[in-house]
Amino acid sequence: MILCDIGNTTIHFLIDKEEKRYFLDEKIPNFKEKIYYVSVNEKGTLKLKQSNNELVNIQDYFEFETNYKGMGIDRKIACYGYENAIIVDAGSAITVDIINNKKHEGGFILAGIKAMKDLYPNISLKLKFDFNTKVNLDKIPLCTQDAISYAILQSIIQPIENIRKKQKIIFTGGDGEFLSKYFKNSIYKKDLIFENMKRIINANDCIA
Amino acid sequence: MILCDIGNTTIHFLIDKEEKRYFLDEKIPNFKEKIYYVSVNEKGTLKLKQSNNELVNIQDYFEFETNYKGMGIDRKIACYGYENAIIVDAGSAITVDIINNKKHEGGFILAGIKAMKDLYPNISLKLKFDFNTKVNLDKIPLCTQDAISYAILQSIIQPIENIRKKQKIIFTGGDGEFLSKYFKNSIYKKDLIFENMKRIINANDCIA
Repeated sequence: MILCDIGNTTIHFLIDKEEKRYFLDEKIPNFKEKIYYVSVNEKGTLKLKQSNNELVNIQDYFEFETNYKGMGIDRKIACYGYENAIIVDAGSAITVDIINNKKHEGGFILAGIKAMKDLYPNISLKLKFDFNTKVNLDKIPLCTQDAISYAILQSIIQPIENIRKKQKIIFTGGDGEFLSKYFKNSIYKKDLIFENMKRIINANDCIA
Repeated sequence: MILCDIGNTTIHFLIDKEEKRYFLDEKIPNFKEKIYYVSVNEKGTLKLKQSNNELVNIQDYFEFETNYKGMGIDRKIACYGYENAIIVDAGSAITVDIINNKKHEGGFILAGIKAMKDLYPNISLKLKFDFNTKVNLDKIPLCTQDAISYAILQSIIQPIENIRKKQKIIFTGGDGEFLSKYFKNSIYKKDLIFENMKRIINANDCIA
């Protein structure tokens, strides 16, 4: 079984247990096996279709109830199967989705850590800094480096804690592991999207 | 009495009760009156000295006790005289300073609202949005516009509420009035720097 997650910048495969990433301008091999995919990027989908025929779009086998308008399929799949949880996908942006009593209640979108780190020196050269990943969040900062590092972290942590009602928090994405350390009752799932794609496939006999 | 606050992009005067702003490349008039100034920008200070002789640098008549390293004189003056307060200067960056029992305990530096608004479309074109200044912060957002507007506001509000211990919050700066509306027991002081400069002058007979 080959799984494929087509994002904004890469096409990400799980081939048995091996992961492969291709940038959008790279050649995608012909895999000679059925590929289950999700995509938030039409260009990437076309790219995949150029070299592969046996494709199943998971989106067609998956219903996600929500009143949220414009929720990407990757976010929906990340939320799949959770009944009480906050799902945080921490990449270039940080999507936060809230599920209470089996209901997706909505979500919000924070800027990603890298974007925030790059932002400060653009505001003013005086705000050039090296990110202190070990800044103490229990103390009020006493220098510029800590003042900015603290602010970046708290501007992510506090809005999430603010809407939390004791749910577990599930982290995924490039900064997910790092951020999960700041939250009690949280877990990091590197392959949340692929795991949930498998669950959807297994729940649909006709495509499994 | 003429007061002058030299910032990173403008030289800001208070002449009697009238305010005037000059950009750093504009010509500064000769005021033929004593000018009390503070400056975080040497180029601006030189500019002022080119056309005016009778100058008093408030920095020389003002002590501010803190363990914070690298705190700008404008931030120190904004904090002057407060015994229990949070001072928020909301401009291109948002400085937050905490004063408890007459002691400056430190502070942190959030990105300004404009910088955050401009940041999202740079992360991804899918995150282009119009800032909804009226987004309901008591509801979890249900569309991209609200999801980002909510995140920008909460990433400012929640870190401040998190360190607050019932102190009053004093807002100043371009976005200070807008932000102050989200906080109980807060006040907006448009001319906090000038007000505090006057207090410092009045406390120093020799220069008044």
